[in-house]
This record gives sequence, C-alpha cells and structure tokens, in this order.
Amino acid sequence: MVPATNDPEPGEPTTADTKTGSDIYRESFRIIRAEADLSRFPDDVERVAVRMIHAAGDPTIAPDIAFTPGIVGSCTAALRAGAPILCDSGMTATGIITSRLPARNPVWCHIKDPRVARLAAELGGTKASAEVDLWHREGRIAGAVVAIGNAPTALVRLLELLDDGIEPPAGIIGIPVGFVGAAESKQALVDSAHGVDYLTLLGRRGGSAVTVAAVNAIASTDELTNTNRLD
Amino acid sequence: MVPATNDPEPGEPTTADTKTGSDIYRESFRIIRAEADLSRFPDDVERVAVRMIHAAGDPTIAPDIAFTPGIVGSCTAALRAGAPILCDSGMTATGIITSRLPARNPVWCHIKDPRVARLAAELGGTKASAEVDLWHREGRIAGAVVAIGNAPTALVRLLELLDDGIEPPAGIIGIPVGFVGAAESKQALVDSAHGVDYLTLLGRRGGSAVTVAAVNAIASTDELTNTNRLD
Repeated sequence: MVPATNDPEPGEPTTADTKTGSDIYRESFRIIRAEADLSRFPDDVERVAVRMIHAAGDPTIAPDIAFTPGIVGSCTAALRAGAPILCDSGMTATGIITSRLPARNPVWCHIKDPRVARLAAELGGTKASAEVDLWHREGRIAGAVVAIGNAPTALVRLLELLDDGIEPPAGIIGIPVGFVGAAESKQALVDSAHGVDYLTLLGRRGGSAVTVAAVNAIASTDELTNTNRLD
Repeated sequence: MVPATNDPEPGEPTTADTKTGSDIYRESFRIIRAEADLSRFPDDVERVAVRMIHAAGDPTIAPDIAFTPGIVGSCTAALRAGAPILCDSGMTATGIITSRLPARNPVWCHIKDPRVARLAAELGGTKASAEVDLWHREGRIAGAVVAIGNAPTALVRLLELLDDGIEPPAGIIGIPVGFVGAAESKQALVDSAHGVDYLTLLGRRGGSAVTVAAVNAIASTDELTNTNRLD
C-alpha cells in the first residue's frame, strides 16, 4: 500500500494565502468555462469536468469526457459510507487529498505488493492486471471507488471481472493514457460497464493527474475552498 | 521527504512479461514517431520528447517542447555524479523510477515538510515557492536536477533565485500545468534560465506525468528495456 499524501492538485497554486489561492482558482475556472462547452454535463459532473480540464491544462478534452449521470452521486454516497479508493498506480494514490475524504476512507494501491508480481507471473498478464485480481481475491472491489489513471490492462481486467458477474464497485474513474490499448479500454468501459457508474476520457489522453483531479473534485462540495462534504 | 517508488510510467503496460511490454512500447513509440515531427530535436532529446508525448497521450505537444541542447547531457552527468532530484510535488517524486537512477540518487520532495508551511506563512507566498526557498537555505539546489511538475510558483521562485546569482542546479525540468501562471512561468524559464540547461513544455499543458516521463527517460539509455546507464 502506498500511503496517500496531501499533495496539492495538479496545476494548483498550493498557496499559503487562501485568498490568493481562491483568486487563482476562480480565474482558472472562469477561463475554462469560457473556453469549453460544458452544457451537456449535469451540474455535479460539470464541476468535476472543470477540474479534469484544469489538471490537463487543456479545454479540448471536454468533448471526450464520457460518464454516467449518477457517477458523482454514487461515488459520494460510497465515500460517505466509508468506501475505500482502489488506485492502480502510486502516482494516482499519492495525488488523492485524503483530508478531503469524508470518512477517513482508505486509499489503496498494491502495484508494489510482492503478491502482485507473483500473481502476474502466475497468470501471465501485466502487474496492473494482477493487481485487480488481487483486489478481487481479497474482496476489496465490491462497493469501492476504483481509480485507474495509468494502466489500460487494469481497466480491461476489471471489465472482465464484471463480465464474470463479480459484486461491482460503486463507481469507476477509468482514465488510463497511451497509444496502445488505452483508447480501446476506455471505449470498452463505456460499452460494457454492466450498469456501474463511470467517468472516463475517451481517446489516448488521460493519466494520473486527470484521474486524481476527478477523484478530488468528487470528494469535495466547494469548488474554491475544497470543503469536505461532511464538514 | 516523500519516498520515491518504482511506479510504472504513465501509460505504460507494467507488464510482468518483458517481451509483451517491449512490444507495446515499440508500437507506442512507432506511432508517436509517425505522427509527430521530431526532426528538430537532437537524438538524446528526441528520445525524451517521445516519452513526454507518450505520457501525455498527445503528439500535439511536440511543437511546444522547448529545451537547451545540453539538457540531457547535463542531467546525465549530474545524476552519474550522485546529484539529487528535487521535486515540487509528491506525485512527481512518486513517479520517478529510482531503480533506473545511476547512483542511488536521492529523490526529494519537501512540500509536506512543516518548515515549508511555516516559511510560506513567513514569506507570504505559496508553499511551493517556500519549498524552493527551503531547498536554497539548505544548500540543496547547487548541482541538483530540479523537476517541477505542478506549481508555477515553484518555477518562478527558482528563476528569482537564479536572478539573485545563486549557485545553479545542473538542469531544470520545469513543466507546471494550468491556466493562470503556468504558461508565463515556462516562458520565463526560456527567457531567463541564466545559462542553466532546461526542458519545458510551453503553454498551459504539462504536469507531473509529463515531468516524470522526462526524468525517467533522461535516466535511462535504452528506450525499451529501461537499462540503467551504469549497469
């Protein structure tokens, strides 16, 4: 397990002066809303989309964001009930701001767990895929929030397990990045999520920073002060 | 200090099967080289640019990559001599693959150091800016490789210290992301690096994943096996 830290979010000013920080956020979000057409998003998802664009530094990702309307509600309810967040990579786990989580939710990443390397050798797949198998074997997936920001094979393996009828997670933030397999894995999420709420960014773009921004946005109600939902 | 981990790189398959992993890398890099015009890059920087594009999932960043021709040579020499890597954020530090570094080089991030919060309050700036001041006060910057993947204010503060004539780092990988200040900070790096070698991505785009990909590429000679330079 990689311990989660309270990293500032990607692109954020990490200011000690709250007013200045809020001003910079406000201006950033104003620019994003002026440049990107976000009219198709429900309010709660729009706020998350703004953060994803912020982390990417790129309003052109907006049309490629795909989601179920219930994704924010499902993840919020799960987090309030204490659900863990399962992350495929250490960078994703590190970026999640634990102080913003409503129920001291655990943030887990097992990519460096020696059992994952052994399982990957045994199953003949990638370590990221074996990490999902480890989660499944240990009963961690049911009701959890899954955040995949790196490895297409982790997302593919999760979808295979859903095909097999496992008890599903509360929501899937599935935004791996890359040129081989990433776009396909995210299209597969849209095509066969088996009713599980999801958020993704279609195509090649994505990655841990965008994934982390989405999770952190879902975990807070106030765009500027990042107030915890249960404060 | 955030301990660095051996996270897989953004978008990489993290495979347990080296051949399969190499095949996926090879195909990814082939696509990138087919789609992006990399002819203006020297060979050693071209290899780094490919990795940055890989991490972004976006060949359109290629024209915005700015650098000095000596950046890879300077950072490589410094790392071989044992130089530390100073990271502005935990996500950047976490993504650096320490097993690839040639001299068990320390990877430091002080954003969560309580002294940084106190210093930020005292100086009236951001924590990221105060982190750079802490590095300077402790003599950590001279000869180091600085990797800024998150906070424009960290890059701005580093440039201010260079203006003041401090002993410079070996190289600056300065790729903060965002809508307010990021583009300006990266242009300032190009305009006033005081002869220090640098690598950046002009404009709004960037972030920890692209920064980490650049550092990891600089730290290895073999594109496919990630062989350590001193193996």
